[in-house]
Amino acid sequence: MKSIQQKFSVPFKYTVHFTEGVFSLDNILFAHTVRNARPAKVFFIIDEGVAEAHPYISSDIKNYAEAYSQDFILCATPLIVTGGEGVKNDRSYVDQILDASNKYGIDRHSFIVAIGGGAVLDMAGFATAIAHRGIRHIRIPTTVLAQNDSGIGVKNSVNAYSKKNFLGTFAPPFAVINDTAFLSTLEDRDWRSGISEAVKVALIKDASFFKWLEANAADLKARKMPSMEELIYRCAGMHLDHIAGGDPFEMGSSRPLDFGHWAAHKLEQLTNYRLRHGEAVAIGICLDAAYSHLKGLISIEDLNRIISLFKKLNFTVHIPELSGDNLLKGLEEFREHLGGELTIMLLNEIGQGLEVHEMESQLIFDAAEKLKEYQEEEN
Amino acid sequence: MKSIQQKFSVPFKYTVHFTEGVFSLDNILFAHTVRNARPAKVFFIIDEGVAEAHPYISSDIKNYAEAYSQDFILCATPLIVTGGEGVKNDRSYVDQILDASNKYGIDRHSFIVAIGGGAVLDMAGFATAIAHRGIRHIRIPTTVLAQNDSGIGVKNSVNAYSKKNFLGTFAPPFAVINDTAFLSTLEDRDWRSGISEAVKVALIKDASFFKWLEANAADLKARKMPSMEELIYRCAGMHLDHIAGGDPFEMGSSRPLDFGHWAAHKLEQLTNYRLRHGEAVAIGICLDAAYSHLKGLISIEDLNRIISLFKKLNFTVHIPELSGDNLLKGLEEFREHLGGELTIMLLNEIGQGLEVHEMESQLIFDAAEKLKEYQEEEN
Repeated sequence: MKSIQQKFSVPFKYTVHFTEGVFSLDNILFAHTVRNARPAKVFFIIDEGVAEAHPYISSDIKNYAEAYSQDFILCATPLIVTGGEGVKNDRSYVDQILDASNKYGIDRHSFIVAIGGGAVLDMAGFATAIAHRGIRHIRIPTTVLAQNDSGIGVKNSVNAYSKKNFLGTFAPPFAVINDTAFLSTLEDRDWRSGISEAVKVALIKDASFFKWLEANAADLKARKMPSMEELIYRCAGMHLDHIAGGDPFEMGSSRPLDFGHWAAHKLEQLTNYRLRHGEAVAIGICLDAAYSHLKGLISIEDLNRIISLFKKLNFTVHIPELSGDNLLKGLEEFREHLGGELTIMLLNEIGQGLEVHEMESQLIFDAAEKLKEYQEEEN
Repeated sequence: MKSIQQKFSVPFKYTVHFTEGVFSLDNILFAHTVRNARPAKVFFIIDEGVAEAHPYISSDIKNYAEAYSQDFILCATPLIVTGGEGVKNDRSYVDQILDASNKYGIDRHSFIVAIGGGAVLDMAGFATAIAHRGIRHIRIPTTVLAQNDSGIGVKNSVNAYSKKNFLGTFAPPFAVINDTAFLSTLEDRDWRSGISEAVKVALIKDASFFKWLEANAADLKARKMPSMEELIYRCAGMHLDHIAGGDPFEMGSSRPLDFGHWAAHKLEQLTNYRLRHGEAVAIGICLDAAYSHLKGLISIEDLNRIISLFKKLNFTVHIPELSGDNLLKGLEEFREHLGGELTIMLLNEIGQGLEVHEMESQLIFDAAEKLKEYQEEEN
């Protein structure tokens, strides 16, 4: 028996830009990003929530396209799609993008640009990745969560069979453009939600960033934009470093950025997505931090600092659905999701994660109980 | 304006095995390939044509799975799907695989194995690539074309909007197993068809392989298995080298392995896939070789050698659909497919390709006319 060993590396690169007012006529960033030998076709997908909060966005894009017609051509009016998890549950949205790709002759040298929250970017990224084996995709994330975490990475997905992210691919975007102008119109819950992923990376990777978050909690809560800009820039940078330095297409089983997420996934599902992803992640992080303390890994002072930061930011750290039974079920589902072998990130200290391969049921119950006490405490 | 440049490489590797009788109980290759810490779930998809030519294949797989139950578990009876281009036109086949992935809890550590010709592998590979962002996929190609070319690379696809390969991804397989036992039951047309991709790589990359093909043409036509084994092994090796050394996910616009393919795609479509892919490629290669001669690149002697090799192998080098109008349309579609800028591989000499960015209409007409004369000649 003969064999041939095939082996190669595929290089990827893309830039995450930070700007304000991406479609202002004096902002050349977008035109520069799509510039090529000949004007490219560009098709836009816009999150309904963004279109409502920014009613002039479609005409701004049209004016911008006219001003930069040497660089790109709008091949149709933007497609407006519903925001939030709903857009990932209904296959017709992916089909609408594929239909448009066919109808307007959008090819591998054209661009599909998605403007919206993480769910819209996930769905649009999936459609874009499978049409012609990958059309150039530019993401313009409009929420804190999407700008510092979900919108800048390499994954896309839609839901199927009532299972989150059942379909998807790994497909790096062509570019990401983070525009702070979109943040000012966010609801408070969405402004806050994205902060939990920043707390997450700080806790597992960077104690000094955690201290910065503590020092800036009041400003973040008060929606001071310079603090949020710095948070997003630092968190995005750490997230990108992590992807580049690790296992971008998740071929191994280690998933450090899933810290706090096993319980969060279950809580999102149990609350029928009444909880925002970031709100569920905040509770998940607190749970695994409490577990880390009960397991003898972090001190009570450190646990108190973590809970206290989330409470200062106005997060809820416990909800009734956080019962022992639900958690055991969630842990089992996470194990299946990982292919049978469990890997859970805990905290060894603030700024340093520690992977374990099992969790004790009794300590999970105790950790949930502890969060209930924290939640009932006076702020 | 700030920016962060993201940059990383993703390493891929997989082995292409050459064996005979992959599900013979004494052949440990398959069990060894899926072996891991715990027995993996394995789901099989089989090309209807293969199941008909090898009626015991499902029971052979069952017996093999029982013998190697420490290594893997069959999670269902194999899914039999129609063979040929039809399987890529009907979305329900992809859905059947996704349904099975959901129903049997097939995850990123499980395996989906596809046994069949290139079309079945393309379709199954696509479904496998998008479920859970990529289930481990093993290909067992059963035709000459799939064993030396389409089944060993990194692309998958299905058709949509009446367009070939409209949907797909780049997703390297977990492993490929080429089993010569499947070749003995091929129809003559399928046996022959796959040879044109070998002629193609020889012409653009390796004059000594071209000479080998000339010397072995009679044996190949007479279905001598040792010659075919060597052809497949050499052609597969060159194909794999090309992928590894070049641009595996085709991010640039150069597509040297598309030599002869621009006209072939159009002929497949014009004949409603009455022509096999390899038969269309043979004509496409002859056309671009004749064009290369008329353009002053290769000598008439070299052109005669190329045409003569294809005729010795019993290929047709001209069909009525090869008209000037059809060819100009096909060239234009290929240009669009490439995103507006044309890159066509011609021959500088036997064993050496040459990329050009335009073709002259009159020379295309003349080349087609020349093939008509060759076809009408006595063999």
